[in-house]
Amino acid sequence: MAAIYDRVALIGLGLIASSMAHAMRAEGLAGEIVGTARSAETRETVSEMGFCDRVTDTAAEAVEGADLVVLAIPVGAMNPVAREIGPHLKPGATVTDVGSVKRAVIDAVAPHLPEGVHFIPGHPLAGTEHSGPKSGFAELFENRFTILVPQEDVPEAEVGKLTRFWQGMGANVELMDVEHHDLVLAVTSHTPHLIAYTMVGVADDLRRVTDSEVIKYSAAGFRDFTRIAASDPTMWRDVFLNNKEATLEILGRFTEELFALQRAIRTGNGELLFDYFTRTRAIRRGIVEAGQDTDAPNFGRGGSKS
Amino acid sequence: MAAIYDRVALIGLGLIASSMAHAMRAEGLAGEIVGTARSAETRETVSEMGFCDRVTDTAAEAVEGADLVVLAIPVGAMNPVAREIGPHLKPGATVTDVGSVKRAVIDAVAPHLPEGVHFIPGHPLAGTEHSGPKSGFAELFENRFTILVPQEDVPEAEVGKLTRFWQGMGANVELMDVEHHDLVLAVTSHTPHLIAYTMVGVADDLRRVTDSEVIKYSAAGFRDFTRIAASDPTMWRDVFLNNKEATLEILGRFTEELFALQRAIRTGNGELLFDYFTRTRAIRRGIVEAGQDTDAPNFGRGGSKS
Repeated sequence: MAAIYDRVALIGLGLIASSMAHAMRAEGLAGEIVGTARSAETRETVSEMGFCDRVTDTAAEAVEGADLVVLAIPVGAMNPVAREIGPHLKPGATVTDVGSVKRAVIDAVAPHLPEGVHFIPGHPLAGTEHSGPKSGFAELFENRFTILVPQEDVPEAEVGKLTRFWQGMGANVELMDVEHHDLVLAVTSHTPHLIAYTMVGVADDLRRVTDSEVIKYSAAGFRDFTRIAASDPTMWRDVFLNNKEATLEILGRFTEELFALQRAIRTGNGELLFDYFTRTRAIRRGIVEAGQDTDAPNFGRGGSKS
Repeated sequence: MAAIYDRVALIGLGLIASSMAHAMRAEGLAGEIVGTARSAETRETVSEMGFCDRVTDTAAEAVEGADLVVLAIPVGAMNPVAREIGPHLKPGATVTDVGSVKRAVIDAVAPHLPEGVHFIPGHPLAGTEHSGPKSGFAELFENRFTILVPQEDVPEAEVGKLTRFWQGMGANVELMDVEHHDLVLAVTSHTPHLIAYTMVGVADDLRRVTDSEVIKYSAAGFRDFTRIAASDPTMWRDVFLNNKEATLEILGRFTEELFALQRAIRTGNGELLFDYFTRTRAIRRGIVEAGQDTDAPNFGRGGSKS
């Protein structure tokens, strides 16, 4: 495939950016990949690993002459970085990001971008519980969705170019309105993460059940929670602080429903529980049918069908 | 391996019992496998599949002459089945079960067992989101824990025999006190399941986010919840109704912690969130080190490291 952008600058070199670099290389999507990170240790690691053509010390240097700038940093760091790179952006460049919330990123970044720069916020729905430059791999985005939230004044041709770029890395691209993005993600990602963190914290606190017991007997249910609750703490702190309204709304609904089920347990209302559990089973079938997960039992771990 | 029990009777022929049959066959642990199920359709399916040597119409027939009787039925069905089989049990036979709660099973079953029958309640910590006789596979118990809760008057030799039987199917066997079992499982399995069911229900209810959106964008976090929430509704109704006290206790603690985190989000207390998320990450490492899960990102689905 011919390069879609002549020069791509990755600001931040964690799981997402390093996976993008591997995927860009594998598919020949970028003429040159320039990377930078705040931490000198990360920059050194990436220089040694070699998945960027150049590693610069500052974000300002990295964006010089870049046709696409990817902000792959925690949401809380977006504002100062946008302020730093704004004056150095090439006219006609596209700026995107990979943050899990979009309203807060737009508020933090947009004011610092000069006229003639195209701002197309983005969010690849892909990740693992690992973080850092060594955790990236080229297939991370394959058959996963990337949501783009183009700002009003961006030409369609530029949105099309970024769309083809993500498609080149294997992603399915969808366009979405910013407020809707933040609500959908509060439901499908942010609130589930908070709940998983909480449940793992409760288990850790309980003195009558030791940590080693929790760990040993985690097979049935708890294990999936611990995977979710092992995600990057900085990133998730920023997600919750920056998608406050939608998360609090969904949490409120969650608590309300949980209390209804708790009451059914207390009063012995088996019919309510059975009906509820039957309804939720159908959603799972939809996910398997939509190709977003495998039907293999237990995701294929712990044995295969004989 | 020489057969450990000459005749094993499986009462109920769902995921667990069918997996046990496949594993017993693969390892030669039973001289003869007799099975029965309440549903005629299930009995017919199993007769066709052939993983039992004989399928009987009633539980009373199935247990005739059996050396090991396995109650693999929902906890709510234990009492009438125990009443039915009690008079037909062979003197010196061992009765066990695979229920997810233990106090309630003991209360339901023990009064109906005659003198000279050994009652060793059990709980294999293994499962998938699938159910029914076609969902079983021989490797289900491999490297998973099975907890045995031997009753006071059972000879050690009989506990040893059942232990070797489970080990033969690949399980790690642990002995535990009944009340402790029910508390540990409330933390590691029952409460996480209720929470997952609730979160999936909330997503389904929210009218501004369509089911198809929930399904499409489930990659980040929500997907694991839907797998958990797809488990068998009858089994889980019975779990909650029969482990009421421990589940309600853990739910109370969960809600308390969730409110603390919710408050931190509302007040913008990023430090509290960061510290909490950092602590929970350590538990995940323990699980990977204990060999109860893989360190492969995203369980190896959606791509492997390149």
